[in-house]
Amino acid sequence: MIYLDWAASAVPQEDACIKALKKSFLNFANPSAKHCMGEAARFLLEEAREEISYTLGIKKNLTQEGSKKSLSGSEKRIFFTSGGTEANHIPLFAMMTAPCSICISSLEHSAFREQVKIMQQLKFKVLVIPSDKNGIITPEAVLKTVEKDTGFVTVMAVNNETGAIQPIAEIGAALEEFTKGRRKIHFHTDAVQAIGKIPFNLLNLPIHSASFSGHKIGAPRGIGFLYTAKNIEPFIRGGGQENGIRPGTENLAGILALAECLKNYSIDEKEHFSKAQNLMDYLIEELSKINDVTLIPQTRLENPQNFSPWILQFAVRQLTGEVLVRCLSERGICISTGSACSSKKHSRPVLDAMKVDRALQMNAVRVSIGRTTTLDELKEFVTVLKEILKEF
Amino acid sequence: MIYLDWAASAVPQEDACIKALKKSFLNFANPSAKHCMGEAARFLLEEAREEISYTLGIKKNLTQEGSKKSLSGSEKRIFFTSGGTEANHIPLFAMMTAPCSICISSLEHSAFREQVKIMQQLKFKVLVIPSDKNGIITPEAVLKTVEKDTGFVTVMAVNNETGAIQPIAEIGAALEEFTKGRRKIHFHTDAVQAIGKIPFNLLNLPIHSASFSGHKIGAPRGIGFLYTAKNIEPFIRGGGQENGIRPGTENLAGILALAECLKNYSIDEKEHFSKAQNLMDYLIEELSKINDVTLIPQTRLENPQNFSPWILQFAVRQLTGEVLVRCLSERGICISTGSACSSKKHSRPVLDAMKVDRALQMNAVRVSIGRTTTLDELKEFVTVLKEILKEF
Repeated sequence: MIYLDWAASAVPQEDACIKALKKSFLNFANPSAKHCMGEAARFLLEEAREEISYTLGIKKNLTQEGSKKSLSGSEKRIFFTSGGTEANHIPLFAMMTAPCSICISSLEHSAFREQVKIMQQLKFKVLVIPSDKNGIITPEAVLKTVEKDTGFVTVMAVNNETGAIQPIAEIGAALEEFTKGRRKIHFHTDAVQAIGKIPFNLLNLPIHSASFSGHKIGAPRGIGFLYTAKNIEPFIRGGGQENGIRPGTENLAGILALAECLKNYSIDEKEHFSKAQNLMDYLIEELSKINDVTLIPQTRLENPQNFSPWILQFAVRQLTGEVLVRCLSERGICISTGSACSSKKHSRPVLDAMKVDRALQMNAVRVSIGRTTTLDELKEFVTVLKEILKEF
Repeated sequence: MIYLDWAASAVPQEDACIKALKKSFLNFANPSAKHCMGEAARFLLEEAREEISYTLGIKKNLTQEGSKKSLSGSEKRIFFTSGGTEANHIPLFAMMTAPCSICISSLEHSAFREQVKIMQQLKFKVLVIPSDKNGIITPEAVLKTVEKDTGFVTVMAVNNETGAIQPIAEIGAALEEFTKGRRKIHFHTDAVQAIGKIPFNLLNLPIHSASFSGHKIGAPRGIGFLYTAKNIEPFIRGGGQENGIRPGTENLAGILALAECLKNYSIDEKEHFSKAQNLMDYLIEELSKINDVTLIPQTRLENPQNFSPWILQFAVRQLTGEVLVRCLSERGICISTGSACSSKKHSRPVLDAMKVDRALQMNAVRVSIGRTTTLDELKEFVTVLKEILKEF
């Protein structure tokens, strides 16, 4: 099997996951329990939170400042969730009691796209930021879309279908300028395809929150986090866990695995990034030589720095994406059409937003690579793709 | 260590959890992906769903009807969530677009209690069903509380603090009668302390939905499910997973572990239940001999059949619950005050609802036993408790 669907789910970091599960067995009590076993579980949980803060650069020095101390109160910035969708929902739902218009980019994941649709029924005004044809949300487009009563803006950091890296810093700065002297707009970014993948510094970005999902870097499915730079008044409530931000007994095995997997990914991050660039350069070059292939966006070749080297979207002339995925799968190669999360639907909202020709949309597929992808695998993929194209 | 806080979290079924995680490694692709690896993950997921349906008696015969077939369409009744809180939220949130009054019992978990508080800000009328002094919600109390515009009623199956078993069948029947010939009221039950613990048949109960959390029976934290007997129009949306009921990439390792743990718990269920009854009888008898101890409710001795044999609430005269928990913890025995989920708060809403004397409330503690609890552990607990009481 050749697995080229890392953006949907990464190859697991098995040792880290097993180790975390076993550690959680020894600390199986409810982390909210007040007895010594509960406290032991709580200690591990807070240690993992701190470890992640350190790995992500939110906290500068793990040992110097001492355990737990520095993460108390306002410094608590990482809140564990069941994954990316929930981490995206928390700041969005926080708007429920503060009526305002909500502004989402036209490239967002269905976690936002579908959720705001139903929020419109509750009289929320939803504003959609158009994308340019390259799949980029510009600060100008954001400023043209937001209105005076806008309370929430979300633009994902890296698009999960095209790999387009969004100018989060510039958009955040533009929003800061726009709201100067009055109520701030909450600026959120879905960082699921950014953290652990591209250079991305949460602390330096002018954002108020960001979401992440563990299974995109080899942690188990079912764990993620919300990063916040300011306090949130959550709408989804319950037992008060995660400082009131996310209710429900904490998934300790998942949390420990996530901390370990993130740490492992942070080692030699630059080397892995440049390795991915080389692999992607090879893939783009080879695909560009095939007449029947169109890269999406077509300008990808000209602006490689605007795209994640882990994700590539393209279309072939003679086959729909669905058929191509099946043909490759039969030959042991796993790629996808768009997002796995919208695989049941036939529409392609992201490509629509980019004004990609409808025929091209239907034929579009995504290849996404990861830490253990090899040049040989990509060579094999190109060979098999050419064989399939010859058949049709 | 003597662990007597099973209602907060059970001792893990380690082998089942490890086996599930390893199986999920082999099927790490996104279950929504359309290639063969995604399909393999999807197959396992649906197999686990079917297994659970069989274990819970929702589905009569696993092998005869054939895999997957029988769970398609309207027969799909189990939807995986990140735990009990989320499983409770889904049917409650479904009311968001259909304005109605919401009716919750005064004994509910904070997942409901805290959530409806904030929903009141969105102009939802919230009706609270009073409890009798024994901690029981009677059908009469429900009927006195519901109003014509009530769209949702929730009464938990077994209270997590007192162990009181609620008359769910009778309440459901009363609601059926009340709504005869007009729009049904959605009747939900939080079955977190019922499933795997007491005789409880989802299929035969006149309920529309029920929630469950895996870590209460030894599955990992972070997995649970919502059972539904009718279609729900969910408010929380995203990638359309779980038939649109619960968005987010499915936690396959957790799901496989949950299926296995539930199956294990279903073996010799009756024997375990009567073993728990014997243990609880012993504990109640011993505690009743101690002058300083008051059972909560005081009538527990007279109506043992109305209480789960896995949970006991009581108070001692001379120590607050918090101090007693700490004293026992220092001696290697883990019990809790009330729910772990509200351990940070000093109020005891459940005991308040039962009109338990305020001084008794402050001193109340919960002992909860489980599958591996032994008589010797309880003997040791009683001995240590007596020693502590002598000291104060």
